[in-house]
Amino acid sequence: MIVDAYTHILPKKYQEGLEKKATRRDIGLNSARYAKTVPTLIDLEARFHVMDAFKEYIQVISVAAPPIYSIASPKVSLELTRIVNDELAELVFKYPERFAGGIASLPMTDPKEAIKEAERAIRDLRLRAVEIYTDVSGKPLDSPEFIPLYEKMVELNRPIFIHPFREMTTPDYPGEKISKYRVWTKLGWPYATALAMTRLVYGGIMERLPGLQVVTHHCGGLIPYLAGRID
Amino acid sequence: MIVDAYTHILPKKYQEGLEKKATRRDIGLNSARYAKTVPTLIDLEARFHVMDAFKEYIQVISVAAPPIYSIASPKVSLELTRIVNDELAELVFKYPERFAGGIASLPMTDPKEAIKEAERAIRDLRLRAVEIYTDVSGKPLDSPEFIPLYEKMVELNRPIFIHPFREMTTPDYPGEKISKYRVWTKLGWPYATALAMTRLVYGGIMERLPGLQVVTHHCGGLIPYLAGRID
Repeated sequence: MIVDAYTHILPKKYQEGLEKKATRRDIGLNSARYAKTVPTLIDLEARFHVMDAFKEYIQVISVAAPPIYSIASPKVSLELTRIVNDELAELVFKYPERFAGGIASLPMTDPKEAIKEAERAIRDLRLRAVEIYTDVSGKPLDSPEFIPLYEKMVELNRPIFIHPFREMTTPDYPGEKISKYRVWTKLGWPYATALAMTRLVYGGIMERLPGLQVVTHHCGGLIPYLAGRID
Repeated sequence: MIVDAYTHILPKKYQEGLEKKATRRDIGLNSARYAKTVPTLIDLEARFHVMDAFKEYIQVISVAAPPIYSIASPKVSLELTRIVNDELAELVFKYPERFAGGIASLPMTDPKEAIKEAERAIRDLRLRAVEIYTDVSGKPLDSPEFIPLYEKMVELNRPIFIHPFREMTTPDYPGEKISKYRVWTKLGWPYATALAMTRLVYGGIMERLPGLQVVTHHCGGLIPYLAGRID
């Protein structure tokens, strides 16, 4: 059996909530167009049709980018995070032959609520992990305010999935306004992933919490290739 | 025989010129301390002693970072570039059993003088290539002002070596003042190299000048590993 451990989805109520309430949502951004350009994210039938092409294939689902807290207030972010985590749990419950599990989102701009939601998602909703991004509104992952969440995840004995965060609005050269040629995702995402991983290690988080389980996208960004340079 | 094709050096007159005339030289920067912390850069005897440990080993020499134009005015940059290219040529002439060739520096903030110096270095000094950096004062390598230099290098039929440029003064996260844990060079240099390579390709330079020869440091930055993502 193939367990596809990092598959994205945009459940219905969450997507409707985004449209209505995520007021900082820049519809010019790639990630804001996912729902329209990638039908399998919102349309379950379309998703199952694609999945049928692969034998013994099952998915672990998590919410598609961008992180809700990057486009909504902490209050709305918390509200929509709860909605989407409920929806992920429902999907996993309703389609056990399609979805092996779900990965919870967290309202990271409110670290205390993030911990509560992690606990609710893992204990009550039976989601299997939490997903955060490579930075939280520009803050690196070794910022002290995130450590209590990591401690909670060690206590819950469940992993943290780390998704790259970078939009085309981050230029590659100072005189430019956007990142050209989709470099922001093609190269920028693995780079952001690698940066985040170095912070967890050199920032002392992994030393402090050896039980912390971390899963990164895209084969660990650049680390497998450049391990010799950072060792 | 091993030809070490990308070895750095800080010739005497150039290093003295840097100390005296490169007024924007931030002595807090790593690259400003190379001369003191890496003796083989300035001390030929120390260099030869290290080289003696390897049989049939010969070097192609180029000037150590930072690019002179990043720390001096265009006028001083041109003056010191001419001095150092003369010195590289002298070293190659004087120690043929040590140095297989030299790679010229260019005063890139004065694109017209850069072309003249490239021609002088290749034709008159018999240097074998030119070295530029992954950006020129923040400008990407597909900026129109650099195209005449690329045309000249095609005409001269000699390669352009591309060295990464990024200092610890470029932070990895917006709230920080410096790049922590030497990430600016460990991961940042391969990233800068990969960005520059994408600009030469997607910016249309390689299509426009198929005869342009480009050599990048560190196995081509990230490109060999992430080629599948950018194809």
